[in-house]
Amino acid sequence: MTSLQALQDRFGRNVVFQMNVRLLDGGDRLGAVISATIGAGAHIGQVNLGKVFTESMIYELRVFAESDEQMASARKAVEAIANVEVVDVLDMAMESHRGGSCEMRSRTPITSNTDLRIVYTPGVARVCKAIEADPAKAREYTGIANKVAIVTDGTAILGLGDIGCLAGMPVMEGKSAIFWEFARVSAEPILIDTRDPKEFINVCERIASTFGAIQVEDVAAPQCFEITRTLDERLDIPVFHDDQHGTATIVLAGLYGALRQTGKRIEDITCAIAGAGAAGTAIADLLMHAGAGDVVLADSKGIVHRGRAEGMNAEKVALAERTNTQNITGGIAEAMAGRELFIGVSRPNLVSREMVRSMAKDPIVFALANPVSEISVNDAYKAGAAIAADGRMMNNALAYPGIFRGALDAAAKSITIDMMMAAAEALSNIVPEGELLPEMMNPATHQAVAAAVRGAVKD
Amino acid sequence: MTSLQALQDRFGRNVVFQMNVRLLDGGDRLGAVISATIGAGAHIGQVNLGKVFTESMIYELRVFAESDEQMASARKAVEAIANVEVVDVLDMAMESHRGGSCEMRSRTPITSNTDLRIVYTPGVARVCKAIEADPAKAREYTGIANKVAIVTDGTAILGLGDIGCLAGMPVMEGKSAIFWEFARVSAEPILIDTRDPKEFINVCERIASTFGAIQVEDVAAPQCFEITRTLDERLDIPVFHDDQHGTATIVLAGLYGALRQTGKRIEDITCAIAGAGAAGTAIADLLMHAGAGDVVLADSKGIVHRGRAEGMNAEKVALAERTNTQNITGGIAEAMAGRELFIGVSRPNLVSREMVRSMAKDPIVFALANPVSEISVNDAYKAGAAIAADGRMMNNALAYPGIFRGALDAAAKSITIDMMMAAAEALSNIVPEGELLPEMMNPATHQAVAAAVRGAVKD
Repeated sequence: MTSLQALQDRFGRNVVFQMNVRLLDGGDRLGAVISATIGAGAHIGQVNLGKVFTESMIYELRVFAESDEQMASARKAVEAIANVEVVDVLDMAMESHRGGSCEMRSRTPITSNTDLRIVYTPGVARVCKAIEADPAKAREYTGIANKVAIVTDGTAILGLGDIGCLAGMPVMEGKSAIFWEFARVSAEPILIDTRDPKEFINVCERIASTFGAIQVEDVAAPQCFEITRTLDERLDIPVFHDDQHGTATIVLAGLYGALRQTGKRIEDITCAIAGAGAAGTAIADLLMHAGAGDVVLADSKGIVHRGRAEGMNAEKVALAERTNTQNITGGIAEAMAGRELFIGVSRPNLVSREMVRSMAKDPIVFALANPVSEISVNDAYKAGAAIAADGRMMNNALAYPGIFRGALDAAAKSITIDMMMAAAEALSNIVPEGELLPEMMNPATHQAVAAAVRGAVKD
Repeated sequence: MTSLQALQDRFGRNVVFQMNVRLLDGGDRLGAVISATIGAGAHIGQVNLGKVFTESMIYELRVFAESDEQMASARKAVEAIANVEVVDVLDMAMESHRGGSCEMRSRTPITSNTDLRIVYTPGVARVCKAIEADPAKAREYTGIANKVAIVTDGTAILGLGDIGCLAGMPVMEGKSAIFWEFARVSAEPILIDTRDPKEFINVCERIASTFGAIQVEDVAAPQCFEITRTLDERLDIPVFHDDQHGTATIVLAGLYGALRQTGKRIEDITCAIAGAGAAGTAIADLLMHAGAGDVVLADSKGIVHRGRAEGMNAEKVALAERTNTQNITGGIAEAMAGRELFIGVSRPNLVSREMVRSMAKDPIVFALANPVSEISVNDAYKAGAAIAADGRMMNNALAYPGIFRGALDAAAKSITIDMMMAAAEALSNIVPEGELLPEMMNPATHQAVAAAVRGAVKD
């Protein structure tokens, strides 16, 4: 973890700005500028001397703020200093997405007509004919085997909900950038403008031959289950839903890390999950597959149990059948009482310190709601948690790039639960002492996941 | 034109190989190797000294051959030389497409958790919310405005016909590579696996919000007309069919160049077109729009005329109404007699020298069938053509990258005939003395097209 991020994480100052400040007095006021910024509640991540002019110089300050309002008051405080001028304030998240985060490029330069005649006509006709004669050659002589479609209908973008697919595009492009940077996967966002799961499935099927795998992204439950299940059945390429499979993999990897630190055994881990949608359901299934003890899920209508009438659908009826062995009822408080592990994939501030205190001794708390968790890590620790983590510490980007790299390399036809298990174990095997999960920026992390997943692919 | 290409073009040796040859005698036999290759009928494009070992050295010979058979006999001839060994022969078209010609990359490196938290969560949520509040911001804060979907159903891949969309992928990827190299457009191949034009249109509509424009590619006539027309009506982004719009633009640009060389005027140009599919129809319409004289089209059933019964469809009935003012009948010979201009977008060797001789004085012959033209440029000249060109000299890649660059930059909602006219004029304005069209490898060519198209976009 870089010190910049540690700073952001510790203080919850998640909005990153660049404030460009002109000093007219030869730079003497830089300290005052920084003090004024900090005085407004913001923090300084970085200070760079930018342009230097005869009578002034411009400093670029990377500022971490809690909100736009806090940044505005920092700016105001800086502008109140004599001989100091704020040139502009850039919102770095917006700036980093300007023009998009990914682009389709040629893999080789075209610098002569001979190059052109090989990459395109007449040379390309030979390649087409070779694939026509033997379709398996498409894996070798096109990019298909390294291409992932990131598909969304925009119904569950991050924690923002149903904001439509266009507004979800920056998330898809961000995922694509991560795919490339961490695993050299060519991942292409495709917005599918429909709310009908059958039509979504149809479009995916029609375009599927373009790709080596499909990542279903930010599609709401319950339609995400029908979509991923149907596509997985019908297509002979992997279909992965990050909210289900990626999140579950990271939770299991984190659990392995926590078990090592606490000396607990997975078969003794009873679990309460807040949220019974895509993530909660997939987490429950993977934990049970990994040998965890009783798992109970609760949603906004209370604990999912056999005989519940309200807020059920086919997915939840089936979930009630395979979880909650004692068929307990109640709300999240009842679900957590006496449990070893809490996993939150629900909504901000759902969980009180009291609820954590009601858990088993030295409980593990993974409060993953984004951007504000069910209970803060600090509060969880104060209430007696042996291990506590939130969504910033347990990021799916640790899992999916390597999972796809491995699945594509092995020409897998599906992402199986064994591949998810292998990915979680691989992650937990390289955790630095005292940490829960390995370092995201280390290429070895993603390579380890890819190697484990490749090894878990059955022919 | 590079000398390598001139060589290929002049001799029709379109298959490019790399033959790696080991010489055991200190290099003395290199001349013999080259002579043997040339003796088999192939040509040498390039010779590089590759690896050097203690007892041998490897030369890499770029060989242009007419066919695999010719290359095989060249190889055999080389292998017959003492102390010479052919290590391998690589098919360069196949090699250049290995792993595909394009890939989706991150536009910026992700080297820290802070980078990650800006490109992805939590920072990306700010970008999503900004677009949710104002969808027009998607143009600025995503890559959509620079993204083109290259869509095909695989029904008319190059001159190869209906070989299916998978076998067409190398063409789509090649186009994508050209888009990037010549115009920095992020162009993404999407194979759409259906033969039903309505379903093809449906899939394009569902995914259209991902893109700033759509290139319909290698879809057969007549369904390409319904597809491009319907999409153009329904979508508020440009829809371009290269076989129609790109080919027509290049033909008009080439005609402008030919008129300059011959001193003829466009209003005096009567025209016979062989082929009445996508390309032929679009060429006819653009020539008429540009002010050319009478245009007659002929297909495998003869001249398209009012009252023809055989091989007609709605498109051709309409075509008969707006072309062929004298309503002449017959075949391609009758179509060409007395005409100033012949344009072939049909099939190899359709046209005899006799037919060219029957044309008006100093005729212009554009024989564009691929990979073998309706009549060779040499034969056309021998039969009295003032100007003759084939598909190698009149390449759509001169037009579409700049057309899209201009259309995307101007946020055009359609590709209009005025934009095609502007592109053709821009190309003809920068033709070097004595040439028909400008140089493909010169970035200024594509920039000129883009600027002209931008200027022709109506708000």
